[in-house]
Amino acid sequence: MTDHDLRAALAAAHAHRTEELERLGEWLRIPSVSTDSATRRDVRRAADWLVDRLRKGAFERVELHPPDSHPIVYAEAPAADPAAPTVLVYGHYDVQPAGDEADWESPPFEPTVRGEELYARGSCDMKGPTWSVLAALAALRRSGVELPVTVKLLVEGQEEIGSPALSGFLERHAERLRCDFCLNPDAGMLGAEMPTLATGVRGIAFFDLEVSGPIQELHSGEFGGVVHNPAQVLCELLAGLHDDRGRVTLPGFYESVVETTADEREALRRLPLDEDFYRSEAQVPELWGEQGYSVQERIGTRPTLEIHGLLSGYTGAGAKSIVPARATAKLSTRLVPDQDPAAVRTRLEGYLEVNAPPTVTWKLTELQHCAAATSDPESPWSRAMEGALERAWGCRPLRRRIGGTVPIVVLARELLGVECVNTGWALLDGNAHAPNERLHLPTLHRGIEALIRFFHDLPDVRDRVSGHTVKGTAAETAETACAPEAAP
Amino acid sequence: MTDHDLRAALAAAHAHRTEELERLGEWLRIPSVSTDSATRRDVRRAADWLVDRLRKGAFERVELHPPDSHPIVYAEAPAADPAAPTVLVYGHYDVQPAGDEADWESPPFEPTVRGEELYARGSCDMKGPTWSVLAALAALRRSGVELPVTVKLLVEGQEEIGSPALSGFLERHAERLRCDFCLNPDAGMLGAEMPTLATGVRGIAFFDLEVSGPIQELHSGEFGGVVHNPAQVLCELLAGLHDDRGRVTLPGFYESVVETTADEREALRRLPLDEDFYRSEAQVPELWGEQGYSVQERIGTRPTLEIHGLLSGYTGAGAKSIVPARATAKLSTRLVPDQDPAAVRTRLEGYLEVNAPPTVTWKLTELQHCAAATSDPESPWSRAMEGALERAWGCRPLRRRIGGTVPIVVLARELLGVECVNTGWALLDGNAHAPNERLHLPTLHRGIEALIRFFHDLPDVRDRVSGHTVKGTAAETAETACAPEAAP
Repeated sequence: MTDHDLRAALAAAHAHRTEELERLGEWLRIPSVSTDSATRRDVRRAADWLVDRLRKGAFERVELHPPDSHPIVYAEAPAADPAAPTVLVYGHYDVQPAGDEADWESPPFEPTVRGEELYARGSCDMKGPTWSVLAALAALRRSGVELPVTVKLLVEGQEEIGSPALSGFLERHAERLRCDFCLNPDAGMLGAEMPTLATGVRGIAFFDLEVSGPIQELHSGEFGGVVHNPAQVLCELLAGLHDDRGRVTLPGFYESVVETTADEREALRRLPLDEDFYRSEAQVPELWGEQGYSVQERIGTRPTLEIHGLLSGYTGAGAKSIVPARATAKLSTRLVPDQDPAAVRTRLEGYLEVNAPPTVTWKLTELQHCAAATSDPESPWSRAMEGALERAWGCRPLRRRIGGTVPIVVLARELLGVECVNTGWALLDGNAHAPNERLHLPTLHRGIEALIRFFHDLPDVRDRVSGHTVKGTAAETAETACAPEAAP
Repeated sequence: MTDHDLRAALAAAHAHRTEELERLGEWLRIPSVSTDSATRRDVRRAADWLVDRLRKGAFERVELHPPDSHPIVYAEAPAADPAAPTVLVYGHYDVQPAGDEADWESPPFEPTVRGEELYARGSCDMKGPTWSVLAALAALRRSGVELPVTVKLLVEGQEEIGSPALSGFLERHAERLRCDFCLNPDAGMLGAEMPTLATGVRGIAFFDLEVSGPIQELHSGEFGGVVHNPAQVLCELLAGLHDDRGRVTLPGFYESVVETTADEREALRRLPLDEDFYRSEAQVPELWGEQGYSVQERIGTRPTLEIHGLLSGYTGAGAKSIVPARATAKLSTRLVPDQDPAAVRTRLEGYLEVNAPPTVTWKLTELQHCAAATSDPESPWSRAMEGALERAWGCRPLRRRIGGTVPIVVLARELLGVECVNTGWALLDGNAHAPNERLHLPTLHRGIEALIRFFHDLPDVRDRVSGHTVKGTAAETAETACAPEAAP
C-alpha cells in the first residue's frame, strides 16, 4: 500500500462520510439494551443488521456465536498478502439502558445531529467507534487498495453486562482468532484535540443487594419502631462502606492494589484533566474522593465503590406511611491491578455477615465481574497507533489509564497471548451510560483517518517486529504534545 | 328509645347485613387515592357516591366543602328530641395507594370476600368503619325508632395526606359543628375478641428528601470516586438518623416528650400485644426498636423515625454502571405529646446543614404534619362507648394509645373544644396501608351492634352529664377483661 493508496483511501473516506453516517444511524436505531430481557429481540436485530452489512462488505465467514440471543458477530477480511499482519478488531453492539427518556433532548434511539454532535444511545459507546473500523476498511476497498492487514472482527452483544460469553468464545476459538494484536477502539479520548492511548482499564465486580424485612409492607404507625425498617438497614450497610477519608472499608480491599510508580503519578498529574474539568462536567459545587490521590489518579489507578441504584417502598407522589418490605441497591467496585474480582464478593459477604443486624435477611447477587488489565504502550502496535493518531491530529497523543472496564483487554492477553491497542473516538464528555449520549463527528472522521493511516503502516511494523528491529517510531518524532491550552 | 327499640334496631341491622355490605362494596370499588393527582377524579367520585347515599338516607344539609377536589362531605341527621346529645361523627373516604398490585391476592379495588374477611383497599382504613356508623343509623331508621342523638357527619378526603383542609373547615364552621363529643371510628382494635378504646394518637411530620449530585447520570468508571455519589450521601445521611440504641439522633428530638407514668407503663405491659405477635405478624427473625421500652410502649408512647421509600439511579434488571444524578427518600417521624411537629422540620434541616457534605445539594420538602393528642378515657362519652363495646363483645374493652395519626383527635379538642371517642373495627392485622387490606366481617357486624347500643345509651349519658351525676358506668360493672388466652 503506497502513499498514493493512502491518499486515495483518505479521499474515499471523506467522499462517503454521509453514506457511512446514514448506515451507522440505522444501527443506532435498534435499541440493543443487553441488560434488559425485554429488549432481547432488539439485541438480536442489531446483530443481524451487522451480519447483513458485513456480508455486503468484503467480509468472509460471517457468523453468529451462539446463533440465538446476544450472539458474538465474527467475520474475517483476509489481506492479499499472506504475510501481512493480523489484527483482531474488537467491538460491541449492545448499549446501556436509556434511563428516563425525559432526560434526553432527542429520543435515545432516534439518532439526531445537532451542531457537530451525533446524539443517540450507543453513538460513542460504542456502535460509533465499532463502525469507524468498518468505515476505514470500506474506504480502503472503495479506493481499490489491497487490504494491507488481515482483519478478524469480533463484535459482541454483552459488553454492558460484563461479557459473560467472551472468555469461552476466545478459549474455544483461540486457534482461529490467532493474531498479532487486538485493536480495541472502546477506550475513548480525553478531548477533541487530545487523541489518547489507553494503557489500562479497570476491572469491576457488580452486585445486587437486597435487604428483606417484614413479609409485606406494614403500617408505619403500628409497626415502625418495633419491626426493623429494611430501607434504614440498607442505608446503614451502604453508609458503612466508605470511611471519612473516602476509602472503601471492606477489610483487605486494598491489599493487592499495585501502587503506581512515581513516574506514572507524575505523568498522570500532567494530564489536562484537572478538578475544574470534573466540576464543570458534573456541575457540582465540590469534588470528592479518596484522600491522598489526585483526580487523575483516582480515575484509573485507584479502586472505587459506587451505588448505582436504590429502590424501596413507596416512591410515588405524596405520602405513604409504611415500613417497606424490601430495600434493594445496585453497587459495584471498580478494580485495579492486582485486585481479584472474585475476592470482592467474599469481602462484601463477610462485611454483610458481620454488619447486617439479625432483624432482617439479605441476599447478595453478583451480576458480573472482570479483572483490571494494563496494556503495554511500548508494544510496536501501540507505538504504530500513536504514530497514526499523531499524523491525524498533528500532535503527540496522550497516554492514560481509563476508569471504565473493557473485558477484552484482560482476556486477549490471558487467552490469546496478545496485547490490546486501546484508543477510541468517544470523548470524556460524550455522556456514555448517561442521557444525551453523543459522538463528536469531526473526531469520528479524524478517527477514521487515523485508522486508515494505522492500517497503512501495519505491514512495515510487522516487518520490523519480525526483524526484531523495532525502532524510531513516529511517536518519538512528534514535535508537539496533545495538550491544548484549554482543557476539555 | 326503649329496650324494645334497641332489640328492633339490632334485628334490623342483622337483617340488612348483605344489603349494607353490597353498598360498602360499591364505595370500595372507587380508587379514591388522595396522595396521587392521577386519581383526583376518583377521589371526587367517592365523595359524590357518599353524597348520593346520604341524600337517599335520612340526612339533611348534605354538602361538599370545597365543591371541587378532595371535598369534605358534611351532613346532618337531627334527633327528634331537641335536647338530645349531639355527636360529630368523623370518617374519611380517601385511601392509601394500592402499591404493587402483584402483591394483592385479589385486585385492591375489587372487594372480595374470602372466609370471614372482606379484602379491598379502604376496607379497614376506613370506608368500612365509616360505613358502619351509617349502617347503625340505617338500622335505627328501618326499625322505626326515633333517632336518639343528633348526628353531624364529617367525612373527609384528605386523611391519608395529613388532612390539610380539616383545621380550616373546623375553624370556619365551629358554630355549626357544635357538639358534645366527636366519634372517631378510625382507631381500630387489637384483635377480633379485643374491642379497644384508643386513649391517644401519635402525630406525624412527613418529608421528601432529595439529594442532588451531578447534573445528570455519569459513567461510574470515568466519574466515580471523583464526583460524590448522591445515593451514597443519602444513605449516609439517613444512616445517621438513628444511634445504636435505636434512638433518633436529631438534636432536641426527645426534649418535650412526655414520659408515660408508671401506671400507664404497667397497663401497657398487660396488653396482649407481645413480641411474639409482632414477630409473627411481620414474619421477621427478630424485632428492633428503642432500647429501654417495651414493644407496647414503642407503639404509641414513643416517637419514631421511619424511611418509607428510596429511589435513585438505575433500578431495572441487570447492571447499569452510573453515578446517579439524584437520590430521594420519603421519611417521617411519628410524634407523641408534647412534641411540636413544626420543630421536626427545623431539627431535620439543622441536621442536614451540619451533616450534608458540600459536594451535593439537598432539598427537604414537608408533605404533612400533625400533632399527637390524647383522649380522656374517663369522659362520659368514652365510658359509654366502653359500656356499649362490653355489651357487644361480652368482655371489658382494652385501652391503648395507637401508633397511627388521626388529625381529627387533636383538632376536635383544639378547635371545637370536645373530646374524641376513639374506637374502630379494623384489626391490627388488617393490613392497613399494606397489600391485602381486609376487614373482619364478624367484627364489623359486632361493631355496628356496639354503635346501635352506644347511640341508644347516649340520651342517658347526656342526662347524667347535665345533672353532673356521672357514675356507675357499665364499664365498671364488667366481669371479664377482653384479653383472650391466645394473643391476636
